[in-house]
Amino acid sequence: MTTGFGDSGSASEIEEGWELTPKFDSSGLLTAVVCDHASSDLLMVAHMNEAAFAKTLESGVAWFWSRSRGELWRKGETSGAILRIVEIRLDCDQDAVLLSVNPEKSEYMCHTGRKSCFYRRIVKQGNSFRLEIIE
Amino acid sequence: MTTGFGDSGSASEIEEGWELTPKFDSSGLLTAVVCDHASSDLLMVAHMNEAAFAKTLESGVAWFWSRSRGELWRKGETSGAILRIVEIRLDCDQDAVLLSVNPEKSEYMCHTGRKSCFYRRIVKQGNSFRLEIIE
Repeated sequence: MTTGFGDSGSASEIEEGWELTPKFDSSGLLTAVVCDHASSDLLMVAHMNEAAFAKTLESGVAWFWSRSRGELWRKGETSGAILRIVEIRLDCDQDAVLLSVNPEKSEYMCHTGRKSCFYRRIVKQGNSFRLEIIE
Repeated sequence: MTTGFGDSGSASEIEEGWELTPKFDSSGLLTAVVCDHASSDLLMVAHMNEAAFAKTLESGVAWFWSRSRGELWRKGETSGAILRIVEIRLDCDQDAVLLSVNPEKSEYMCHTGRKSCFYRRIVKQGNSFRLEIIE
């Protein structure tokens, strides 16, 4: 796809270079992992198309692409749970980003009314697996 | 898709229920975020199809689906950097998992020879953005 970012170079340039050449997947998306800057806790996982990534870089707050609604989405637009970016890291093959954020109204971080979307763990019960709410 | 797991129920069952009903995306994948159990550091992001998810649950070590190679992949198969699962969390809509792991041979965690795949941050330079290696 054509992007406002540079084209990917060699494996060495992608992995060791200084040039930002994000690799959007076959659906045009990067995976975005959001962690709390203060605690390092994982808050949520979402996706960014090129526009969401560019808006996030330019504005300093997190924008995503909603796969279910098919639209650009500024996190916290309705809930007030805005994610203020402290740092963005990129992974080795430039197809995933880590947003380290200061969340506003963190009690509305998850739409279920929790501080993280990862509030359940998988536990084994006999020969099967079930979920257990932990926070 | 037909899975070995239960079918998704109502939004309330998906978000608040105890039943594990993973929601694979249009490519048949869950997003898997891998964090170090001891430090909470983000180590890598990868993807799991149903077989990789089932093998991970059953074996206690991380299996993924390689989108680039189109094959099941046990992390550390060649490098020795096996990821031993301590806990698996699931997010609100059951389409992303957090693997909390004890990594073996953590110096080979990333194929570039680093302890995490997220070793670069994005920095602003004039009107554009570039990468800076931080570890």
